[in-house]
Amino acid sequence: MAIYEFQPEVYYTALGTYEPVLEIADGDTVITTTVDNAGQDASDQRVTPGGNPQTGPFYIADAEPGDTLAVHFDKLWPNRSIGRTSSLIAANALDPYYAAQMPHEHVGAKWELDLEKGTATLIEPKTKLGRFALPLAPMLGCFGVAPPRGQIISTSTSSTHGGNMDYRGFVSGVTAYFPVFVPGALLFMGDGHAVQGDGEIVGTGIEISFDVQFTVQVLKGKKINWPRAENDIYIMTVGNARPLDQALQHATTEMVRWLQEDFGLDALATHILLGQCVEYDVGNVFDPAYTMVCKLKKQFLPA
Amino acid sequence: MAIYEFQPEVYYTALGTYEPVLEIADGDTVITTTVDNAGQDASDQRVTPGGNPQTGPFYIADAEPGDTLAVHFDKLWPNRSIGRTSSLIAANALDPYYAAQMPHEHVGAKWELDLEKGTATLIEPKTKLGRFALPLAPMLGCFGVAPPRGQIISTSTSSTHGGNMDYRGFVSGVTAYFPVFVPGALLFMGDGHAVQGDGEIVGTGIEISFDVQFTVQVLKGKKINWPRAENDIYIMTVGNARPLDQALQHATTEMVRWLQEDFGLDALATHILLGQCVEYDVGNVFDPAYTMVCKLKKQFLPA
Amino acid sequence: MAIYEFQPEVYYTALGTYEPVLEIADGDTVITTTVDNAGQDASDQRVTPGGNPQTGPFYIADAEPGDTLAVHFDKLWPNRSIGRTSSLIAANALDPYYAAQMPHEHVGAKWELDLEKGTATLIEPKTKLGRFALPLAPMLGCFGVAPPRGQIISTSTSSTHGGNMDYRGFVSGVTAYFPVFVPGALLFMGDGHAVQGDGEIVGTGIEISFDVQFTVQVLKGKKINWPRAENDIYIMTVGNARPLDQALQHATTEMVRWLQEDFGLDALATHILLGQCVEYDVGNVFDPAYTMVCKLKKQFLPA
Amino acid sequence: MAIYEFQPEVYYTALGTYEPVLEIADGDTVITTTVDNAGQDASDQRVTPGGNPQTGPFYIADAEPGDTLAVHFDKLWPNRSIGRTSSLIAANALDPYYAAQMPHEHVGAKWELDLEKGTATLIEPKTKLGRFALPLAPMLGCFGVAPPRGQIISTSTSSTHGGNMDYRGFVSGVTAYFPVFVPGALLFMGDGHAVQGDGEIVGTGIEISFDVQFTVQVLKGKKINWPRAENDIYIMTVGNARPLDQALQHATTEMVRWLQEDFGLDALATHILLGQCVEYDVGNVFDPAYTMVCKLKKQFLPA
Repeated sequence: MAIYEFQPEVYYTALGTYEPVLEIADGDTVITTTVDNAGQDASDQRVTPGGNPQTGPFYIADAEPGDTLAVHFDKLWPNRSIGRTSSLIAANALDPYYAAQMPHEHVGAKWELDLEKGTATLIEPKTKLGRFALPLAPMLGCFGVAPPRGQIISTSTSSTHGGNMDYRGFVSGVTAYFPVFVPGALLFMGDGHAVQGDGEIVGTGIEISFDVQFTVQVLKGKKINWPRAENDIYIMTVGNARPLDQALQHATTEMVRWLQEDFGLDALATHILLGQCVEYDVGNVFDPAYTMVCKLKKQFLPA
Repeated sequence: MAIYEFQPEVYYTALGTYEPVLEIADGDTVITTTVDNAGQDASDQRVTPGGNPQTGPFYIADAEPGDTLAVHFDKLWPNRSIGRTSSLIAANALDPYYAAQMPHEHVGAKWELDLEKGTATLIEPKTKLGRFALPLAPMLGCFGVAPPRGQIISTSTSSTHGGNMDYRGFVSGVTAYFPVFVPGALLFMGDGHAVQGDGEIVGTGIEISFDVQFTVQVLKGKKINWPRAENDIYIMTVGNARPLDQALQHATTEMVRWLQEDFGLDALATHILLGQCVEYDVGNVFDPAYTMVCKLKKQFLPA
Repeated sequence: MAIYEFQPEVYYTALGTYEPVLEIADGDTVITTTVDNAGQDASDQRVTPGGNPQTGPFYIADAEPGDTLAVHFDKLWPNRSIGRTSSLIAANALDPYYAAQMPHEHVGAKWELDLEKGTATLIEPKTKLGRFALPLAPMLGCFGVAPPRGQIISTSTSSTHGGNMDYRGFVSGVTAYFPVFVPGALLFMGDGHAVQGDGEIVGTGIEISFDVQFTVQVLKGKKINWPRAENDIYIMTVGNARPLDQALQHATTEMVRWLQEDFGLDALATHILLGQCVEYDVGNVFDPAYTMVCKLKKQFLPA
Repeated sequence: MAIYEFQPEVYYTALGTYEPVLEIADGDTVITTTVDNAGQDASDQRVTPGGNPQTGPFYIADAEPGDTLAVHFDKLWPNRSIGRTSSLIAANALDPYYAAQMPHEHVGAKWELDLEKGTATLIEPKTKLGRFALPLAPMLGCFGVAPPRGQIISTSTSSTHGGNMDYRGFVSGVTAYFPVFVPGALLFMGDGHAVQGDGEIVGTGIEISFDVQFTVQVLKGKKINWPRAENDIYIMTVGNARPLDQALQHATTEMVRWLQEDFGLDALATHILLGQCVEYDVGNVFDPAYTMVCKLKKQFLPA
């Protein structure tokens, strides 16, 4: 159960079987950093080309195809005071005829973070919102493992291996689970957001570099089909696809499987339970694959 | 500002320009009841054919096409102790290949309500869930006004006029807003659920008859395009369509309009605000039109 | 087997249970006219408000709920020389980001028809296309029967009862089949197009008034779920829904049913046959419900 | 303008930047073979694992990112007499509730080809179809170039780089065009079908090994966004995405661009022309990305 401090020197804008930057083992913890979506680090300097560059991949010894990799986020917190957002709702989140009438000069917005107080305050552009302040809710937009079949998949999108899910529920304290497709799993992470709305409808959260601490665990012989997660209150499953309907189908199916495989419920009990207790969160409706999260409160799980 | 006690004798399974059952005025309150989705009343007797039969229509004097009708739900509460749910997740909420393998013998589930304690307890069928109890969260599944263009639209579906939205946020204390398409608006309501999960993925909440008290208000000359709502914490807009993407587009567009028309924000401020603060709830993914709700916390509205 | 000449005096912009304009019987033929989408007749005068106004409803004696109504189009042909189209591809047929950049000043286009030669020639606006001529391929955009459940449904959209399908395969010589939902079936028709592209992506064909001759047949006790059709070469099924995927699912399912019910194929043979021989046509991707047509060449049907 | 005879020894089940198997130049012709979807060759022996294994990649000298690669199919023809199909329509091409009731024992079907007569005859299983014969219409299901951003993308799916489009219009005599994303373009091809229905709704055509002859051309400095193609009668653009609506949007947008960039039409003329003359073909509705093809008859192009 080692603790590593790792300073990244190379970043990838796709998830795949690249040379690992660090080999760790089941139970180990890594303290590291991520750059923002544009490749800018804690000093707001561009250190790598943009496009959600990822820290990693981390090779987790013992992780083999057919296992599950658990990643617990011990800490996810911005490490600088300037964050940036887009200021234009994406055309695909608006009625087509309405999007076609929108003003389309994009103006970058800047936010100043107070990392002590835990706020992000809009400082540019000047609007009627004034110095509008939001509580920080730091989350990782893009992380996951190497995909199956030797694929290398852009950090713009997501699938069964994770990737650019842009779900605002991926915060400190959450444990995420991924199917392992390649030896060592090859874990990547990046694209921190200080704050993000549901759906990432402007195509960004408050984009910023992060300090990250995470701890891995290998669940040997545990097979899952889509990313899963849990926090103190919920178990969650993640579907990544278009349209949203299909993302929801993936997430719901994975939740049905989870309840039947791990909680001793048969199909009848599972359907009755989910029917009245399921919750959904919209991850993103901006990226090439949309993300829908299916949630169930742990209080409703069988003892 | 009269208060009417109204006992329904006729019910409709479509929303349209039918003979009003009661004429009321701006500011009036009505105390009435609704039967459950199957047409069963407070004594669990079938008094009308099933299919989300509606109480109403109520004719609201002064409401003219181009106005908005506000309906405040003073009280929505079950008025009997037995509720029923389906026990089968709909094929369209699951991966197609997986749905094709599901056990498909449907078993109706029964729930016993304790209206004092505010709980619903599963009493049939016997499963590993045992006597599984949920807190009541009573909501109306289907309500709205007569649609435009002389249409009569089934209570199985929904559109700009409301209808079968099956959104679990429509609870006591909420004010819903509808575009007025015909003189008198013609307000309908029914399909009470004691509890419902997001998405109504089994095609039912805990279906039950309700006591309802509501108060209407006519917003003269106020034009809206899709249903809106508010509670103490949120303003909300509702999109009804398939796929979910399109429902989300309608809801987001209506929210953008609302912020620009009523809260003095220009497009730039609106997009920046929603980008980081918007929330979405999945209403239903079962009915012919799906429902997506776009929400913004009132605390983020300009003063 | 009477032949009626019927001159319409009233038109409807929704399909529903209105007072019939003419009662006919199984085997009868009607010679009548339709106005264009804007309510303009053979003399190009507006005789009724626009919105795909329908001639009818025709009450077909003997047609009862659960039967099928066959409508054979003996003749569908424009009856004036001026037709009109939109000149702007709808935002929902283009990439959202691209639609948002399109020039959006709409210019109505005019076409002059030579009904003898069978051509439509673009006469306005002046473009590099010049006097661009197309062969006439006259089709009905909107027709169908009264929908189920007492509904009255706008001629802007379509469903199981037909309606605004805007499929360019509905030409002279085709027989269309509709489920009968109400006594007399109540047949409506209108919205003739002299020419139309697949998908009706500009929201119009060459809109024009028509001479129509049709002959009805009642298939007693024959139950279908979605509109069907046939011509000399194909049998066809029609799905109306959004997204296109769902329209395709409806059409394919109806074709599978047809082959199994009427052509003596079991599921295995049906799937093998359709797998290699099915064809699809895109009806429309403009209206509230999109239309997809599933086709099979008659030469592949079992003897 | 060399002619190469190339016998493949390695196959890839993803498209990406692999070591080229042959370097050719602008104008060169290659005569080669492809194995079937399951990795079986002309002698029906498995020579490589299944999953649409590809012959290639071919490195085309002079092809640089930002260019377009033209691939003319001089010959696409099966090179053995046994082909195989699935016999089960995919759940996602049927109504969800209906798919859930389907018999799901899959039975592989076998077809015997007469390469002289040009027919494929069903020989297994025995059904009421008997020895059902279809005319050969050989096409390539999966081909394309290395994708952008260093990605390696599975041959199960498709995108801007081509891939598993499963469009039955890709036959001998067609010229396909791809954006070049990497030096040398890296052309792959495989997954021949002797016959295929629209949509590939059973997930296969008649799967078979092919003799292939193709000739390449590099269009320097010509930038396209999605695959394009042409034959004697049509120009075509290809969109790959889910849902079908989005695939259609990509294809239509690419066609609008093509008409404006290469045929001297302004937006107004382009929209008027496509509105009445556009055609769509459904490529596939089975793979992770669906394929829609937008077509325009060359006779309607400006001189």
